[in-house]
Amino acid sequence: MAVSTVYTVQSLNSTCSISKPTKTHLGFNQKQLVFFKKTTTTTTRRPTTVITCSAGDTVVIGLAADSGCGKSTFMRRLTSVFGGAAEPPKGGNPDSNTLISDTTTVICLDDYHSLDRTGRKEKGVTALDPRANNFDLMYEQVKAIKSGVPVEKPIYNHVTGLIDPPELIKPPKIFVIEGLHPMYDARVRELLDFSIYLDISNEVKFAWKIQRDMAERGHSLESIKASIEARKPDFDAYIDPQKQYADAVIEVLPTQLIPDDNEGKVLRVRLIMKEGVKYFNPVYLFDEGSTISWIPCGRKLTCSYPGIKFSYGPETYFGHEVSVLEMDGQFDRLDELIYVESHLSNLSSKFYGEVTQQMLKHADFPGSNNGTGFFQTIVGLKIRDLFEQIVASKTGAPLEATKA
Amino acid sequence: MAVSTVYTVQSLNSTCSISKPTKTHLGFNQKQLVFFKKTTTTTTRRPTTVITCSAGDTVVIGLAADSGCGKSTFMRRLTSVFGGAAEPPKGGNPDSNTLISDTTTVICLDDYHSLDRTGRKEKGVTALDPRANNFDLMYEQVKAIKSGVPVEKPIYNHVTGLIDPPELIKPPKIFVIEGLHPMYDARVRELLDFSIYLDISNEVKFAWKIQRDMAERGHSLESIKASIEARKPDFDAYIDPQKQYADAVIEVLPTQLIPDDNEGKVLRVRLIMKEGVKYFNPVYLFDEGSTISWIPCGRKLTCSYPGIKFSYGPETYFGHEVSVLEMDGQFDRLDELIYVESHLSNLSSKFYGEVTQQMLKHADFPGSNNGTGFFQTIVGLKIRDLFEQIVASKTGAPLEATKA
Repeated sequence: MAVSTVYTVQSLNSTCSISKPTKTHLGFNQKQLVFFKKTTTTTTRRPTTVITCSAGDTVVIGLAADSGCGKSTFMRRLTSVFGGAAEPPKGGNPDSNTLISDTTTVICLDDYHSLDRTGRKEKGVTALDPRANNFDLMYEQVKAIKSGVPVEKPIYNHVTGLIDPPELIKPPKIFVIEGLHPMYDARVRELLDFSIYLDISNEVKFAWKIQRDMAERGHSLESIKASIEARKPDFDAYIDPQKQYADAVIEVLPTQLIPDDNEGKVLRVRLIMKEGVKYFNPVYLFDEGSTISWIPCGRKLTCSYPGIKFSYGPETYFGHEVSVLEMDGQFDRLDELIYVESHLSNLSSKFYGEVTQQMLKHADFPGSNNGTGFFQTIVGLKIRDLFEQIVASKTGAPLEATKA
Repeated sequence: MAVSTVYTVQSLNSTCSISKPTKTHLGFNQKQLVFFKKTTTTTTRRPTTVITCSAGDTVVIGLAADSGCGKSTFMRRLTSVFGGAAEPPKGGNPDSNTLISDTTTVICLDDYHSLDRTGRKEKGVTALDPRANNFDLMYEQVKAIKSGVPVEKPIYNHVTGLIDPPELIKPPKIFVIEGLHPMYDARVRELLDFSIYLDISNEVKFAWKIQRDMAERGHSLESIKASIEARKPDFDAYIDPQKQYADAVIEVLPTQLIPDDNEGKVLRVRLIMKEGVKYFNPVYLFDEGSTISWIPCGRKLTCSYPGIKFSYGPETYFGHEVSVLEMDGQFDRLDELIYVESHLSNLSSKFYGEVTQQMLKHADFPGSNNGTGFFQTIVGLKIRDLFEQIVASKTGAPLEATKA
C-alpha cells in the first residue's frame, strides 16, 4: 500500500511559502507533491510541523563512494565552504543520516534502502545491490526537491538496521545526495547538476579498514579481508561503474614517493575533472591543457621526506576528455599549503588563500594534510562557483567575480 | 727570439684613441703594450693601419668546446643578438679565424697554438695538449684587450696548418674567446666575465662527425671512429675538465622521447646555469627553484611525434649549485617556439618574442629547431644583459629594463 502526503503549496515561485500537510492519496501534479512510498513493513511517523520551501532552483549534487570512504568528511568540508556548520535536523530522529546547514542539505542514499538489514539477509542481497534500494522513490523525491517541493524521506537506521519513519526534507539551495548509488539510476543521474565519485583504491581501502575496524573496533585482520572480499563482486558490479558518469573523481592511491610503500599513510590523490561540463572549469597547474609535473619543494620551499609532487595534464577517462591534477605526498606546514595553492589556477576561490584557510579551519578532519582534504576543499569551491553561476544564469544577475 | 710591438696609446680612458705602431722590444707597462711572442719559425707581417681602441671596459666571454661542435654557429647567434653581422677582419688574412661585428670580436684560441701542424706531429702532441698552446701569450693578450689595449694576435691557419703573421685585434665591447682551452689556464679563466662550455655527448658527437665527415667529406666510418678514439685521452684530460668552471654549460644528448633512438637527429639539450654568478640570473620555468617537467603539447598546442618535453630544476654540478633547463625534442612550427618562449621567465629579452625572432632570423643555422639553437640564443640574451649590467655598474647609468 502506498501512503503519501500532499502539501498544498501556496507559492512555489517565491523564495518561501507556507504549507500544511494533509493526508491523501498520491496525486499527479508532482510540482505540488511530496510522496513517500512505503515498501517495508516498518511503521511510519508523520511530520507535524508547518514547513517552508524554496523557489525551485535547488542545485543537486551527487556524491558516490563506498561506505567508510570519507564521504561524511567531504560533506563537512563542502558545507563549510558555504558557511555555517552542518547539523542533523533539530528535534528529529537522533539516528537521522541527514545534515543541514544554512544553504545545504546532505542526505544519505542509504535512506532509500527498500530492504532493511533483516530483509537483505533473508533475500541474500547486500546493500550494494540495486534490488535492496528504491530508485523510483529516490528519483521522485530528488526531482521534487529540485522542483522546490518538500519531501518525506525515509530514514535507514544504521544502528538498528531498520527503516525508521520518514523525516521532512525541505528544498535547500544546494541538495547533496551522497551514498552508494547517486549515479546508478539514469533518471536520478539526469537530475544532478554535478556529480563526484570518491574512488579509493583497494590497497588504501584495505589500509583504512584495518585502521578503523581493527585498531578502533577490534575486528580481526581475517574478518576485515573477508568483509572486503564479500563486498567486492557487488561493488564492482553496481558501485564502481558509476565513476564513468562523474564530473569529478577523486582517486586515492598509495604513494609513489616511497618505494614499495604499503603503510597507506602517504597518499597519491588524483582529481579527475571532466572537460566540457557547464559551469565547471577544471583547476590547472601553470599551463592549461599541457602536461606538467611539479615538485614545489626546492630552493624556495623546503619539505621533509618524502616531499610533495604534483602532476597535471589532459587524459581520457572512460572515453571522456578530462584534466587530471595529482598530488602525491603530504603537507607538513602552512607555508607549503599556501605555496601550492598560490600556483594553482581556476580554483574559484573568493580571496587569496581561501583553500588554505578552509584546510586550517578543519585541520582535525581526516586527510587535512594530503590530497584528499585538499581536493575535497577545491571541489567544494568549484561547487559553490557552479551554484552561483546557475543562480546567476537564472536570475540574470551579475556574478560576483571569483579569483582564478 | 721574441718580437713585440708597442703602441703608444694616447688616451686609454676615452671611448676612442689613435695610436701608431713602432717596432721595439717587449716593455713592462702592460697597460700600454700589445705583444706577440713568436715561438715558431714562420715569418710575420706587421699591420700598417692606424688603429683605434676602446675605453678599457671590454667584457670577456669564454666559450669552450671540441672542434666541430657548433661553436661558430653559437658565435653567429651571439653576435646577431647584439645586432649586425659578424665578419672576418676586412683586408686581412683570408684564413683569419676572427669574426668582428659592431660590438663583438670573436677570436679562435687555435690562434694560440705554439706548435704548427708539423711541429705537433714532430713532438707527437695533439692540438688538445696544453704543450701545443701558448697560454702565456693567451693570458697577456686577453688581459690587454680587457684593459683596452689592442694586440697583435697570431693566426693559426687551419688550411695550411701553419702559424701565419699576426692580425691586429682592437678592444671591442664584447670580446669572445672560443676554442679548446678558454678555461684551462687559471689566469685566463680569471679574466672571463662569463664562461660557457658546449658539452656534446659522445653519441651525438659521433652522429655529427658521421654526418659531416662521412656524408660531406667522404671519410670512412672506421677512420671517423679512429679519429674520435685518438682524440679521446687528451680531450678527457684537458678539455672536458673545463666544464666545471663554466657559468653555463649546454649539454647535448640523445633524445629520451624515442625509445632506443640512435639516429642522433632528435636531441635532448640541457642548459646548466650556475647560481650566484654576478649579473647572471638563470632562466626558469613557471616556478623558480622548484622541479618541473612540462610537455607543452596538449590542448592548446599540438605537436608532431615525438613532441617536446621541457624540464627544469635545481641540481648540483661539480659541487656548484646550478639550475638546469632541459629541452627534449624539436620545434616544428613557429607557434610552438613562441608558446614555449612565453612560458619561460628571466629570459632577459627586450620584447615579447625576441628569442623566437632570433631563431627565425637564422632558421638556416644548425640546431634552429631544437634546444641547441634555442639555448644558444637564450645565452646570447643573457650575455647581452650581463654586458649591459656591467657597463651600467661602471657608469652608474640606469639600465634599460629587460623583459622577464
